[in-house]
Amino acid sequence: MATIADIGVSAAINLLGAFIFLIAFALLRIQPFNDRVYFPKWYLKGLRDSPSQAGAFVRKFVNVDFRSYVKFLNWMPAALKMPEPELIEHAGLDSAAYLRIYLIGLKIFIPITVLAWAVLVPVNYTNDTLRLERLSNVTSSDIDMLSISNIPAKSQRFWSHIVMAYAFTFWTCYVLRKEYENVANMRWQFLASAKRRPDQFTVLVRNVPPDPDESVSELVEHFFLVNHPDNYLTHQVVVNANQLAKLVKQKKKQQNWLDYYQLKYSRNNATKPIMKTGFLGLWGQKVDAIDYHVAEIERLSKEIAAERESVVTDPKAIMPAAFVSFKTRWGAAVGAQTQQSRNPTLWLTDWAPEPRDVYWNNLAIPYVSLAVRRLIMGVSFFFLTFFFMIPIAFVQSLASIEGIEKAAPFLKPIIEIKLIKSIVQGFLPGIALKLFLIFLPSILMIMSKFEGFISISSLERRSASRYYIFNLVNVFLGSIITGSAFEQLDTFMKQSANDIPKTIGVAIPIKATFFITYIMVDGWAGIAGEILMLKPLIMYHLKNFFLVKTEKDREEAMDAGSLGFNTGEPRIQFYFLLGLVYATVTPLLLPFILVFFAFAYVVFRHQIINVYNQEYESGAAFWPDVHKRVLIALIISQLLLMGLMSTKEAAQSTPFLIALPVLTIWFYYFTQGRYEPAFIRYPLQEAMMKDTLEHAREPNLNLKGYLQSAYIHPVFKSEDDDDDHDTAFAKKEDEDVLVPTKRQSRRNTPAPSKFSGGSSPSLPEAVQEHQEP
Amino acid sequence: MATIADIGVSAAINLLGAFIFLIAFALLRIQPFNDRVYFPKWYLKGLRDSPSQAGAFVRKFVNVDFRSYVKFLNWMPAALKMPEPELIEHAGLDSAAYLRIYLIGLKIFIPITVLAWAVLVPVNYTNDTLRLERLSNVTSSDIDMLSISNIPAKSQRFWSHIVMAYAFTFWTCYVLRKEYENVANMRWQFLASAKRRPDQFTVLVRNVPPDPDESVSELVEHFFLVNHPDNYLTHQVVVNANQLAKLVKQKKKQQNWLDYYQLKYSRNNATKPIMKTGFLGLWGQKVDAIDYHVAEIERLSKEIAAERESVVTDPKAIMPAAFVSFKTRWGAAVGAQTQQSRNPTLWLTDWAPEPRDVYWNNLAIPYVSLAVRRLIMGVSFFFLTFFFMIPIAFVQSLASIEGIEKAAPFLKPIIEIKLIKSIVQGFLPGIALKLFLIFLPSILMIMSKFEGFISISSLERRSASRYYIFNLVNVFLGSIITGSAFEQLDTFMKQSANDIPKTIGVAIPIKATFFITYIMVDGWAGIAGEILMLKPLIMYHLKNFFLVKTEKDREEAMDAGSLGFNTGEPRIQFYFLLGLVYATVTPLLLPFILVFFAFAYVVFRHQIINVYNQEYESGAAFWPDVHKRVLIALIISQLLLMGLMSTKEAAQSTPFLIALPVLTIWFYYFTQGRYEPAFIRYPLQEAMMKDTLEHAREPNLNLKGYLQSAYIHPVFKSEDDDDDHDTAFAKKEDEDVLVPTKRQSRRNTPAPSKFSGGSSPSLPEAVQEHQEP
Repeated sequence: MATIADIGVSAAINLLGAFIFLIAFALLRIQPFNDRVYFPKWYLKGLRDSPSQAGAFVRKFVNVDFRSYVKFLNWMPAALKMPEPELIEHAGLDSAAYLRIYLIGLKIFIPITVLAWAVLVPVNYTNDTLRLERLSNVTSSDIDMLSISNIPAKSQRFWSHIVMAYAFTFWTCYVLRKEYENVANMRWQFLASAKRRPDQFTVLVRNVPPDPDESVSELVEHFFLVNHPDNYLTHQVVVNANQLAKLVKQKKKQQNWLDYYQLKYSRNNATKPIMKTGFLGLWGQKVDAIDYHVAEIERLSKEIAAERESVVTDPKAIMPAAFVSFKTRWGAAVGAQTQQSRNPTLWLTDWAPEPRDVYWNNLAIPYVSLAVRRLIMGVSFFFLTFFFMIPIAFVQSLASIEGIEKAAPFLKPIIEIKLIKSIVQGFLPGIALKLFLIFLPSILMIMSKFEGFISISSLERRSASRYYIFNLVNVFLGSIITGSAFEQLDTFMKQSANDIPKTIGVAIPIKATFFITYIMVDGWAGIAGEILMLKPLIMYHLKNFFLVKTEKDREEAMDAGSLGFNTGEPRIQFYFLLGLVYATVTPLLLPFILVFFAFAYVVFRHQIINVYNQEYESGAAFWPDVHKRVLIALIISQLLLMGLMSTKEAAQSTPFLIALPVLTIWFYYFTQGRYEPAFIRYPLQEAMMKDTLEHAREPNLNLKGYLQSAYIHPVFKSEDDDDDHDTAFAKKEDEDVLVPTKRQSRRNTPAPSKFSGGSSPSLPEAVQEHQEP
Repeated sequence: MATIADIGVSAAINLLGAFIFLIAFALLRIQPFNDRVYFPKWYLKGLRDSPSQAGAFVRKFVNVDFRSYVKFLNWMPAALKMPEPELIEHAGLDSAAYLRIYLIGLKIFIPITVLAWAVLVPVNYTNDTLRLERLSNVTSSDIDMLSISNIPAKSQRFWSHIVMAYAFTFWTCYVLRKEYENVANMRWQFLASAKRRPDQFTVLVRNVPPDPDESVSELVEHFFLVNHPDNYLTHQVVVNANQLAKLVKQKKKQQNWLDYYQLKYSRNNATKPIMKTGFLGLWGQKVDAIDYHVAEIERLSKEIAAERESVVTDPKAIMPAAFVSFKTRWGAAVGAQTQQSRNPTLWLTDWAPEPRDVYWNNLAIPYVSLAVRRLIMGVSFFFLTFFFMIPIAFVQSLASIEGIEKAAPFLKPIIEIKLIKSIVQGFLPGIALKLFLIFLPSILMIMSKFEGFISISSLERRSASRYYIFNLVNVFLGSIITGSAFEQLDTFMKQSANDIPKTIGVAIPIKATFFITYIMVDGWAGIAGEILMLKPLIMYHLKNFFLVKTEKDREEAMDAGSLGFNTGEPRIQFYFLLGLVYATVTPLLLPFILVFFAFAYVVFRHQIINVYNQEYESGAAFWPDVHKRVLIALIISQLLLMGLMSTKEAAQSTPFLIALPVLTIWFYYFTQGRYEPAFIRYPLQEAMMKDTLEHAREPNLNLKGYLQSAYIHPVFKSEDDDDDHDTAFAKKEDEDVLVPTKRQSRRNTPAPSKFSGGSSPSLPEAVQEHQEP
């Protein structure tokens, strides 16, 4: 059992570790040759140039200004200095809202910590239960003296815990509501002040029904001309350019190798670089590497050109989906929020994600397939969460000495060497699990992709919520009740609804020390490691050495990275869960949580300002999820407290806790009804206001030109040297504005009007007339 | 333990009872003096007149055509003859869809019954388990020989039950999906073919924010002129006429009494009728009844006029809600499906219910209050369901001999009489429970009203779903596991998730006989009682004798009644539940269910054609609820079968059942996504089509005139003699078309435009221009 002294030692070690990381960071970041690793954001924004245009050669790489070494922690106040509006301007609303998660952590837990230490710690400490038990040889740690365990059964002192549970719940809900409101307002402000963006005018239409007479493009145009006659502007069909994108990616890879070999050759002119064509360059024919790659690139370029041609011309490459743009934001808001056709699985409309945010591969999945995919992934995730230990145990059994000897007898002599044997025995099983946990976010991301979400932001949100559940089951419950998740599930199925919170509740105080250590290792040292950015640092210098020829290459060698919502947010939520669960049980844990939130806030603020480059901007669309998960943590904490109390035979006070989860659940529904629409819908009033303002400011705006090529697949944009293709594609679309119908049944309409494809030839005019009062 | 013979006797008795009801009905319905009781629908439609205009005096009241007595069952084929489209025309889609619930009962259970008798009955019967047990003195009935109880533990025969469970599930889902599709199509057809109705053009706006400068009417007009410039037509503010409605109702009551006394006087001219003014006419001053009521009516008429005046003129009587009408169905569809303002709790728009369907009292409840009301009612319903026995037990204790003697000692001598004593002891406790159950639907209806639903149809739907839950907990579970719902809850909380289905599952086969009897009493005889319509029959003849003077009075004396969705539908659902649960367990029960569905179908078809007069038409909006509840029954049946199986130690086969509930839940979400929007939203394509057609047919339609007074509170319409008020009210609205703003801040705009109240003076024109390409 850990004493307070033990924890102090552990804290000291972790603090030291964090401190070493910080020192290393402070030293590395002021070296000019690391500048692009630690300040990529500014390079990407074009606000910073490579240093050393002037000055001595040494100063180009090493910072020799010793004064800057003294102020090695000055990045911290600098990170805090930038005001929030500027931060939003600088890094986007997503990042600013993300930082607010840490802030609400502080807002929730500072008062809770103060209150818990002022009330609960004295109440817990002034008992003799554990001291008496210790006399009778029951072991317990000093920490438990401060926890609820120190209170004897049936004590009236439990009332203070109940009152505190109410206070903590109300405070948490108050902060959450306040922040929900703030973030919603920030989102409005952001949307209102945002510059004109294509997604404000555009709606993504999916599941366009097949039509034997008309192409998708014609069909979309006719449908919207008929049903949104006053608002429809233009559209952009979605093409299946996945193959093309693959080729472009291959070409890029070959180009990198070519650069590498050319650089090698230029440095050592004596020998022409040689390579083998087989697998990983280990087997196969020896060829001149430069010639080989030049030829490969040539071949790929041709293939790309052919594929590009076929994508543009082949009707089979057109997917039954389109980005439809409207003349006004109002029209787009109407298009996005209404149902278009009788069959609710056809002509599905939804706000178009930002062009950067579109996940192109999923745009053409039909409705039924989506439903089936969701079922499959739901079941798979269940098995992943509860049975993931089974394949790992299998791998571990293979990775044991006997397993290897069986699978590969020829390795036997090597393995039998003592050192290697101990390594295999000691490490391999752990590595199998560790590898799985490292790949888990990617697995979850693949699952989300399979489920058919159409924007990167929604993919990340889905992965985040699954990662949270996985953590909750396997890390939180798994640490409290030892045993695999499946064994837990089995236990829970055999226990009554009353007993489950009891079983967990009883184990909660015992595990306090474990979680304190966890917070220090994962939360303190882990965050300090984050700021050091070891992986990008190494990668940058490797690339810099082997590939970089021009300034543009150096630009590309930077790996700014991004926040990684899908792993980052569930990690924060885990601290909310720990904090709320232990607030009433072991208040000693709270200061450790506080340190985490404060430190992480500063670190991530620094990273967001100087490093990360968000791939997309969703306008804080993730906030409802954040809100929901904190409330889930709150409800879990209430249930566990109830379970714990009922084992303490505090029977007459426990029922007073029942109201808490009921109220919390109600609070959840209330706030979702109140604020969630701000993150999903776009009110007409708002749209109308922006339209009017814009029209007053720029009456002659050519919106069609602006929107024409906004939603073209990125491969058509990515290659700068192929600009002509891009515009060719746009031009082809342009020619189709007067879509001649091929529908047979309409051919014999006497006088075909301009909009001859609709269900009624003269419809748009008719409606216009009809609408004149 | 009941034998098959016992059940036969019981069935014979119940069939006899049903038969007697049917004979009575057959005799009563062909008597001309009952014509208005048994054929009110035709009178209300104006297709039938009072009989006996010609003919002998006797034939006016009694049917003397003896041939008609012979064919006393001929109403049955007559009820089935009317084709469905005609039925929809005649009685509305709601009624036709309601009948379809019985039809899907038949569609689901006929094949299931055949299959279960062909496969499961032989499989069950050819075992000796119960026969062997009976030798060792374990009692069991003949019925159990046909049920799953007859199969020994660990038998391989359970596989047949599992296969059947799959077959039943797939068949049920297939029928449900098919019917969902059918009803959705019927709804489309109905909406598409429906004549012009005000609700197609109208949106109900609630939570109009208060404004110090403008009245609600002005605010609404400005808001929609600005934000729906091309579509807004007119609007109608909601007035608080609850007090006025109360007065009108009082006046009507007094009028009835006046009629009664006048009739009495005209029959017996000798004595002027005298009445007492006090409570129930038992106390107080004696006055001339006719004079008194004439004076009362006079007084009320004046009060009504004053109140009417104040409602029209007093700004405080205007509620922050309005019915906003649009120029086109398209405009209304847009208005109803989009969010209007930034704050999602203001300017809430929703499709306006049909004018008849509006529940006027609830139109002005603010959003926050709605959320709180929902919480309160949720908690109340929980207590009502699980603790309703507590107040009843209290009343029962009061209603006992000792209780009465304590509360009212002066009654002691009367109570001590033996006969009365036994009546009190035997009946009163039962009556307390029975009274509660009779009033339960009304209690649930009041709860729904308190929750703030705005249409009668939604009130009924909500009550229905609560009634279903109450039945499920207290009748179904309460019959299977004896004990009050609260005791059950307590048991379940203390049992594991695995054990709950086991506990119930084990009791299921034992209770088969009980439920068979229940079906016969409630389902067979109860339905036959429904067709007799005893209460309306008696009420009609009473009214006819005491009040009716004119043909119009006779019209009003008819009480056609309506389907009563809030009690009727949960009752049907109970039979679905029984059928699905017992299909695999005791197939003997299935034929009884079949008889119920067939008989009820014929009876209600007759009632709908000849009797019921639906108060509103919601276009089968209740179907998603019906669908959902059948699926809930299906899932319950699957879980109980799993529980039952696991007690039979069929451990290796039980896991195969786990997939069933998962698939069923997935099926639920799939079908809801696929078909539910048809019942909630109105696609733009559809709206546009109807608009275009209508415009082509009636280019000069005065829509504004048509919609002007569509949503006026019924009290302004109800009194025929007060027509002038009605139009006066409409006229007052009419004058306001050019709403002059009183908003101070706008006063100093240099050149006030026509629409001076909007956030931008020239907005509508600007947008119009902007939308020209």
